[in-house]
Amino acid sequence: MGMKKRSVITNLRGVVTPDPAHAWAVDYLEGGAIALDGGHVAWLGFQKDLPSEWRAAEQVDGQRRWASPGFVDPHTHILFGGDRSQEFNRRLHGVTYAQIAAEGGGIRETVRATRQASLEELIAIGEERLRKLARKGVVHLEAKTGYGLSLESESRLLQAYGELKKRGWSLDVTLMPAHDIPLEFQGDPDGYAKVVADEWQPELVKRNPGVASFCDIFVEKGVFTPDHGRKVLCSGKALGLTPRMHADEFVDTGGAALAAELGAASADHLMFASDAGIKAMAEAGVTPTVLPATTLFLGMRDWAPARKMIEAGCRVALASDFNPGSCACLDPLLILRLGCLQLRLTFEEALTAVTLHPSRSLKRANLGHLHPGALGKVLLWDVKHPLELVYWMGEAFVPEIIG
Amino acid sequence: MGMKKRSVITNLRGVVTPDPAHAWAVDYLEGGAIALDGGHVAWLGFQKDLPSEWRAAEQVDGQRRWASPGFVDPHTHILFGGDRSQEFNRRLHGVTYAQIAAEGGGIRETVRATRQASLEELIAIGEERLRKLARKGVVHLEAKTGYGLSLESESRLLQAYGELKKRGWSLDVTLMPAHDIPLEFQGDPDGYAKVVADEWQPELVKRNPGVASFCDIFVEKGVFTPDHGRKVLCSGKALGLTPRMHADEFVDTGGAALAAELGAASADHLMFASDAGIKAMAEAGVTPTVLPATTLFLGMRDWAPARKMIEAGCRVALASDFNPGSCACLDPLLILRLGCLQLRLTFEEALTAVTLHPSRSLKRANLGHLHPGALGKVLLWDVKHPLELVYWMGEAFVPEIIG
Repeated sequence: MGMKKRSVITNLRGVVTPDPAHAWAVDYLEGGAIALDGGHVAWLGFQKDLPSEWRAAEQVDGQRRWASPGFVDPHTHILFGGDRSQEFNRRLHGVTYAQIAAEGGGIRETVRATRQASLEELIAIGEERLRKLARKGVVHLEAKTGYGLSLESESRLLQAYGELKKRGWSLDVTLMPAHDIPLEFQGDPDGYAKVVADEWQPELVKRNPGVASFCDIFVEKGVFTPDHGRKVLCSGKALGLTPRMHADEFVDTGGAALAAELGAASADHLMFASDAGIKAMAEAGVTPTVLPATTLFLGMRDWAPARKMIEAGCRVALASDFNPGSCACLDPLLILRLGCLQLRLTFEEALTAVTLHPSRSLKRANLGHLHPGALGKVLLWDVKHPLELVYWMGEAFVPEIIG
Repeated sequence: MGMKKRSVITNLRGVVTPDPAHAWAVDYLEGGAIALDGGHVAWLGFQKDLPSEWRAAEQVDGQRRWASPGFVDPHTHILFGGDRSQEFNRRLHGVTYAQIAAEGGGIRETVRATRQASLEELIAIGEERLRKLARKGVVHLEAKTGYGLSLESESRLLQAYGELKKRGWSLDVTLMPAHDIPLEFQGDPDGYAKVVADEWQPELVKRNPGVASFCDIFVEKGVFTPDHGRKVLCSGKALGLTPRMHADEFVDTGGAALAAELGAASADHLMFASDAGIKAMAEAGVTPTVLPATTLFLGMRDWAPARKMIEAGCRVALASDFNPGSCACLDPLLILRLGCLQLRLTFEEALTAVTLHPSRSLKRANLGHLHPGALGKVLLWDVKHPLELVYWMGEAFVPEIIG
């Protein structure tokens, strides 16, 4: 769907967009219009104020719909083999995660299936999921490695992501061999963190130059310690990667504070982040990235304290956490909805948290809003007011995507 | 989409259905087939065992999908005017429900809009919502009056439901003028309960014979007392209506026990039902009807104790509670998903709770399963296993509907 060089979207009911000049300001322009030039927003305002120079440009009929920027998803694990629906029900039947792990199930099942998948299969899996997300209005996302857990398999995941980028998918890739401890290093997290930091990360970047821009590690009780985190993420930084971090998901290990110490772009999950950790993130400009669909999927009652983070001065982002074990969910509207319904963000805050703030944490200043200079991808929603996207909680609204 | 008199659905991946001879047994027939005759299931089994008499019947190609019975939704408020999306966001902005009510908002706004709607408008609103639910696989539902709260307006709602039934929609109607206390009776719940029990219910049934089969009342702190409940529901029983009840939603008022005492078909909500109330429901055969999407929509953390109810011997049903104030959600898959994810039912229990048990509580023995004698409405799902309907939490799976 190529856009004409110059075009104007008119006859909209309105435009709703975060204002990138502020932390949490959202503009509602009833009767707004958007002028696009060369794939970017050139002008935003009320249609009655449209400068005369745009009168001759191609008109796109907004059909009285609402325009919004596309969603940006800053935390996904798009590439993995197999699925875990059977395990999911066994757990509902009372089988414990420990039993499943002892039988070689759980994340190990996914690692096995991912290692077995060929490059072509991984690309096909990724493309199907990216297509699904694109149809739902996601225009950019972050995607991690981390289901290979061997040098060869992690490298193949990077290769697959590289090919997906080449095919035009808009994504930022995060290197994450320290997603879990592989069978080969069972009982030796120190040894695994060392090999990842000292050998694999440098080798993976060397083999796949320019593919990854971030690095990540799962700092959690029973997995990797804050010291492992420091080691692996500092190795990543030395390679030019910006740290992100899985932090304080099930217990408070001081992950949020560590992310602040290391200048991470984001700290993610944070259900059990301490007040001190929240303060440290606010001061260091770390983007707390909250994953509410995971809380829902896991049947937990401990929603991350997103309101507290906002009140502490953090620019909170929301993400899907799409993965086979704890959140098999590709649905940006559900994230927006849970942001309002369970995290108690206002609609304007939740919208900003699924557009502008994720873009900031991915260093994509031209995404997540529709002010001049932004990427000219516009979602058109057939609603009387954008609030309906949350309020009619059961509707699978599908936007038309212009640009 | 009329069905030929005799047909067989073959080439299915499988059939999944509750077994109506048991409380909680679900059959998975991989390679199953279903024979339909005159709009009903005539035979269910493995395709290889299909009796020869069916070989000549019209074949419907299952295209390797899974077949299931249709959903039955036993608690909805389908007919109301307007919507409350603006109020919804004001509450997220910190405006209290009390403030909104003081300004004439909240349920009063809906009552105003519903009273203003003409019969034709109500029918059109209802038909649009019923069509939406039908597309998502709901083959039968319960629907209440209760946003009119005047004799004329409640009667118009009944008239609209009657017309919808005439047009072929499969629904059971519940009379519920005691949904709230109208402005005209403010401060006088005793007087309102009395007028509903002694005057309105008899008059409404007389004016709209055969439309309603159930009656209901909102027994809750600050609304109606158990004594009001007894009075209104006994009046309904005398008119041939079977009681249902909004019970123990925000505090324990002994609603579950009252439902048992009155021989109600169901007690609904039950977030705060006591152990004694649960035991009473099990003994009396009351169907506890849990509304998990309401808990999600209201941002509450208090999910109804559905597991405890099952363990006490109750046949739990799940419902949508579709209404403008506390659950603007038409999505049977979300109900099934929340049943597993947050209420911790197994997939088989949750499936039974959205098909067989609601049918029982509505006295519709031929709905909610696919055993011989059942209504021949079959959903076909494009999944490798029915578990995927819950596991892929973000997918808006849409079934093909046969029959």
